[in-house]
Amino acid sequence: MATMKALVYAATGKPTLEDRPKPTILKPTDAIVKMIKTTICGTDLHIFKGDVATCDTGRIIGHEGVAVVEQVGDKVSHFKPGDKVIVSCITSCTTCTNCRTGMPSHCTDGGWTLGNTIDGTQAEYTRVPHADGSLHRVAKNASDDAQLMLSDIVPTGYECGVLQGKVKLGSTVAIVGSGPVGLSALITSQLFSPLQVIMIDLNEKRLSTARSLGATHTVVSGPNAVEQVMKLTAGRGVDTVIEAVGIPATFELCQKLVAVGGTIANLGVHGAKVDLHMEKLWDRNITITTRLVSTTSTSMLIKLVESGKIQPEKVLTHNFAFGDIEKAYSIFGAAESHNCLKVVINI
Amino acid sequence: MATMKALVYAATGKPTLEDRPKPTILKPTDAIVKMIKTTICGTDLHIFKGDVATCDTGRIIGHEGVAVVEQVGDKVSHFKPGDKVIVSCITSCTTCTNCRTGMPSHCTDGGWTLGNTIDGTQAEYTRVPHADGSLHRVAKNASDDAQLMLSDIVPTGYECGVLQGKVKLGSTVAIVGSGPVGLSALITSQLFSPLQVIMIDLNEKRLSTARSLGATHTVVSGPNAVEQVMKLTAGRGVDTVIEAVGIPATFELCQKLVAVGGTIANLGVHGAKVDLHMEKLWDRNITITTRLVSTTSTSMLIKLVESGKIQPEKVLTHNFAFGDIEKAYSIFGAAESHNCLKVVINI
Amino acid sequence: MATMKALVYAATGKPTLEDRPKPTILKPTDAIVKMIKTTICGTDLHIFKGDVATCDTGRIIGHEGVAVVEQVGDKVSHFKPGDKVIVSCITSCTTCTNCRTGMPSHCTDGGWTLGNTIDGTQAEYTRVPHADGSLHRVAKNASDDAQLMLSDIVPTGYECGVLQGKVKLGSTVAIVGSGPVGLSALITSQLFSPLQVIMIDLNEKRLSTARSLGATHTVVSGPNAVEQVMKLTAGRGVDTVIEAVGIPATFELCQKLVAVGGTIANLGVHGAKVDLHMEKLWDRNITITTRLVSTTSTSMLIKLVESGKIQPEKVLTHNFAFGDIEKAYSIFGAAESHNCLKVVINI
Amino acid sequence: MATMKALVYAATGKPTLEDRPKPTILKPTDAIVKMIKTTICGTDLHIFKGDVATCDTGRIIGHEGVAVVEQVGDKVSHFKPGDKVIVSCITSCTTCTNCRTGMPSHCTDGGWTLGNTIDGTQAEYTRVPHADGSLHRVAKNASDDAQLMLSDIVPTGYECGVLQGKVKLGSTVAIVGSGPVGLSALITSQLFSPLQVIMIDLNEKRLSTARSLGATHTVVSGPNAVEQVMKLTAGRGVDTVIEAVGIPATFELCQKLVAVGGTIANLGVHGAKVDLHMEKLWDRNITITTRLVSTTSTSMLIKLVESGKIQPEKVLTHNFAFGDIEKAYSIFGAAESHNCLKVVINI
Repeated sequence: MATMKALVYAATGKPTLEDRPKPTILKPTDAIVKMIKTTICGTDLHIFKGDVATCDTGRIIGHEGVAVVEQVGDKVSHFKPGDKVIVSCITSCTTCTNCRTGMPSHCTDGGWTLGNTIDGTQAEYTRVPHADGSLHRVAKNASDDAQLMLSDIVPTGYECGVLQGKVKLGSTVAIVGSGPVGLSALITSQLFSPLQVIMIDLNEKRLSTARSLGATHTVVSGPNAVEQVMKLTAGRGVDTVIEAVGIPATFELCQKLVAVGGTIANLGVHGAKVDLHMEKLWDRNITITTRLVSTTSTSMLIKLVESGKIQPEKVLTHNFAFGDIEKAYSIFGAAESHNCLKVVINI
Repeated sequence: MATMKALVYAATGKPTLEDRPKPTILKPTDAIVKMIKTTICGTDLHIFKGDVATCDTGRIIGHEGVAVVEQVGDKVSHFKPGDKVIVSCITSCTTCTNCRTGMPSHCTDGGWTLGNTIDGTQAEYTRVPHADGSLHRVAKNASDDAQLMLSDIVPTGYECGVLQGKVKLGSTVAIVGSGPVGLSALITSQLFSPLQVIMIDLNEKRLSTARSLGATHTVVSGPNAVEQVMKLTAGRGVDTVIEAVGIPATFELCQKLVAVGGTIANLGVHGAKVDLHMEKLWDRNITITTRLVSTTSTSMLIKLVESGKIQPEKVLTHNFAFGDIEKAYSIFGAAESHNCLKVVINI
Repeated sequence: MATMKALVYAATGKPTLEDRPKPTILKPTDAIVKMIKTTICGTDLHIFKGDVATCDTGRIIGHEGVAVVEQVGDKVSHFKPGDKVIVSCITSCTTCTNCRTGMPSHCTDGGWTLGNTIDGTQAEYTRVPHADGSLHRVAKNASDDAQLMLSDIVPTGYECGVLQGKVKLGSTVAIVGSGPVGLSALITSQLFSPLQVIMIDLNEKRLSTARSLGATHTVVSGPNAVEQVMKLTAGRGVDTVIEAVGIPATFELCQKLVAVGGTIANLGVHGAKVDLHMEKLWDRNITITTRLVSTTSTSMLIKLVESGKIQPEKVLTHNFAFGDIEKAYSIFGAAESHNCLKVVINI
Repeated sequence: MATMKALVYAATGKPTLEDRPKPTILKPTDAIVKMIKTTICGTDLHIFKGDVATCDTGRIIGHEGVAVVEQVGDKVSHFKPGDKVIVSCITSCTTCTNCRTGMPSHCTDGGWTLGNTIDGTQAEYTRVPHADGSLHRVAKNASDDAQLMLSDIVPTGYECGVLQGKVKLGSTVAIVGSGPVGLSALITSQLFSPLQVIMIDLNEKRLSTARSLGATHTVVSGPNAVEQVMKLTAGRGVDTVIEAVGIPATFELCQKLVAVGGTIANLGVHGAKVDLHMEKLWDRNITITTRLVSTTSTSMLIKLVESGKIQPEKVLTHNFAFGDIEKAYSIFGAAESHNCLKVVINI
């Protein structure tokens, strides 16, 4: 039996590079892809903290990647061996009710499965179920690094932050959290020409990156962050607040920043309940949204990358060979102390 | 100085019928109206509990009513003495940014002021600011009782519950709370032909009323309410959950009832923060909305009453003479024990 | 080789019942279905007039039907022999850009093909391409006659007329043409609770049917039809005009009926250009829409039939055995003189 | 009686500078403004051709301008003498049904009246009815020339072209006509980040301006314009076609350019009916819109000018003293031969 290297959620709870059998076609809708590049997501760190109940030890981690199709099952119609592809973090059967109504994230035979309930992309090869609905041909004239951002963080920032948050022409936006997903929301929010995009974070270095990526204002988290945002918005608060951290304190901050009639769009992966101040918000015409990315925007985002309208690779800070992925985990796990945002793993 | 009878939030904290000076025009955009009918709102009870910080003792209470215009200021263009009108619970200048963007509830010189920050409609006469934006000609061929429902509870149930909740053709709805506002949401939700409207309340009598007003199913609140709703919806939960109570327990119930991709629309007036289970909801594609009624739908709702498409007067259960309004408060304050929903005060 | 009976667009230009080879699976995404019921569409009559350039002689006609699955190809996942199904008039691959963006009518490997560019449903058996995207399980507890209406005319009336026309709560609607598709628009428009639905036709018998199906007003086409509609709408015209005939005169009538800010939604199959009076309409805030049905609403419409909210079988007036289909064509071809609306062909 | 200079639609049919009485307050909602700058619109030329039936000879022409408030009536609340303002081309009472539903262009006591049914802005002073709904405070930190563009052509290009045409992120746009209004649509369409904006005109000089203002492609009108656009869009046609000329030939061109599912948004002022090829378009899922600008976007557009996101003054090519306005008409009337786009008249 052919073997390959893969990064596994080991019984020790640690990310461990192991030898594993090369995957094979299990269902006629599967494809086997040979990975070129992958990356590590904040959600992967949650897995290693034991926060993701659906993911057992022994699992190959990873739900992002650029790859080449090696083999396809009998029912795969749109891809053939040799096709260079982006692996979507969401697997979609395309025909269930949730897939047909724009929520493949809740596909009844898919959704977020890769590196969660089935083996993932931090490996030399990956089996991708429902390949027709879960792979995308790569953008033309774009680097593999740019494409890699399209598996998850760019569609997440765009769909769950910018679209759900109703960022629009002439509006005001605040993004709480200047990590990779918050920066993806920053990059894509500008496509709608809001008047202000205010980036909020504890880390001045990350705020500096935010300014270089188009933030009109940056605010350091802390006791007078609300006051500063109110000053920037003539006391109104902001139309769209994007929560890109995922802890009670930041969710609470969002409630203080949002204007009458505004929206709080949640991007953060939360591990605990939060306080919602309905005694203050019940009459404020607020909308709060939660969402797991559908990746239904990926085809369009690929065209934006092709046209140069967005350069998501600017969020990448570190490169690693696949043999060094354990080290990559340790650096990404302490990202701020290494001035690390998003890493590339070259396979 | 001419005097009149008025129901006052007395220094004792009790609703007290007092003699007060008849109001006069203070600004050229005012109208003075002679009240025909008024009613008591659940929000009024909150005032007497001290929950509404903006409302001081000494205030004449009330923000609903049918009336006749007695006098208008120099800048009032659309109404004249003798016009029979519905007094909107929301006062709108029509020209500020919030008024122009569909949120007169947050009018910078109005909003919910009547019976809150200025004297209200539980009186023989009321001064209505910004009369052009705050009064509506009555429906033709409709009873005064039906019109009375259009000051607040019908637009509230419709705008904040049905519209914000995105009730739609073929969808499923649950309404938590079968009081007057919940029933208004029930009545108006049917205009969009959802497949199911499930009414939930502790009180079997109120659920019986809900069935007579078109609820397809009713569920008694309690330990297995969630299970029953899941059974009715094939385990999916409901597309729209309308919160029409305003306490942490009912808001928490809503979170358990909502389907993936669904909406929780809040109608309840909350006095305390609630728990929001983001650890369960972050990836469920949920929307939560809060809203104070805009009454921008009132003109359309008047036509629905004229055409007989809705009969909101069915929510009325008790009639009182104005001299008995203190008694009306005592009965409405213990509504369930009197099988009371909404009361008419005839002035 | 097994043969079957089929209604063919003969070289003579006439609908002719012929013996034809029973169809077989050609592609692994195909299903072969055994027809139970079919019907004749106005579009079929256009074919026999030579108006449909894509349809050659020799073709088996028909794009509607209730059937039982007899055989499926290797790539069909959602249907198996014995399943009772509605055959959609639109064939959808579910994965091309048009299918993914809600326009399967323009599927790059499908769309309206049955009885047009490939053999259709007026036959004992039909080959249905892309079966997973083109068949629907039948409604529970509903008659085959009701289901038959869901292949084409109900989704057409609903999607292309009511949705495109933005029929909404409290609005006004006029439907020009009280034939089967116009009546489907009438039935489904009421699900949105408009205040008025005015039906316009030359034929008083059809208008009588319209009244029995819920039209609030009917107007006989003719010199003073515009005047009558203006009178009914206080001179404003109607918010939604649905064109359900397909000739220049009726399209011109629509332009005279539409209110400022209103919409003309076209359902008619047109064979010639029309005059558009831009010199009168350029500043009137009008929207005109054309659309071929997507049938993306069919699943929801099936639930409406199951729940009894719509009874589309009321549009059926005549029943024929399959052996009499040539006669059915002759009666449907002169429908008005036979008080015929929609026919059932029992196979 | 005080007199002033004004440009009049003279009985001779020619634009003529005359002495006229200075206007006075006629209704308490009026303001008198002293004009600083005005301009000439293509619609003004239509008036002098006799195409605008509502405009009689003797009328002072003009519906655009920057001005200072000189006097206000008793019912004007939001402006006072000395305020510097943009005069909107649309006069709005703010309270009629059309004003309340986003169509002040069809205000029952306003709309396009200035320089049409009442005296206009090509004068030293203008009476502006319903001043509260018809004036806007000027943008901060912006030139008077930029502000002047906000009376009409920028909101027209944006509202009637870009918004009605549903220009959106990642879509394709063609604008037929590269005059001032077409260029306004070009400038504002880019705020939504479409992938392509193709400008079409007979005049290469105007196309050169279009390229400098951000057109991604330009096409010279002529026999192979359709072929070129199809080549640029991989044979699909464009999602949004904006008609910015107003003659049958250009409207017909738009029908050939629009993609399945696309929209034709009309900006042109038409003097004659056009051919609509329903025999080709009935099944193409097309939307056609007509619209007179509402100017409801003006407040937001002012902020865009303040922020530097748009520079509409780039459409201005010529400056004239008010005394030379007759000459300005003659140059603007033969604009292309003078490489003229939009002119400033300094008063």
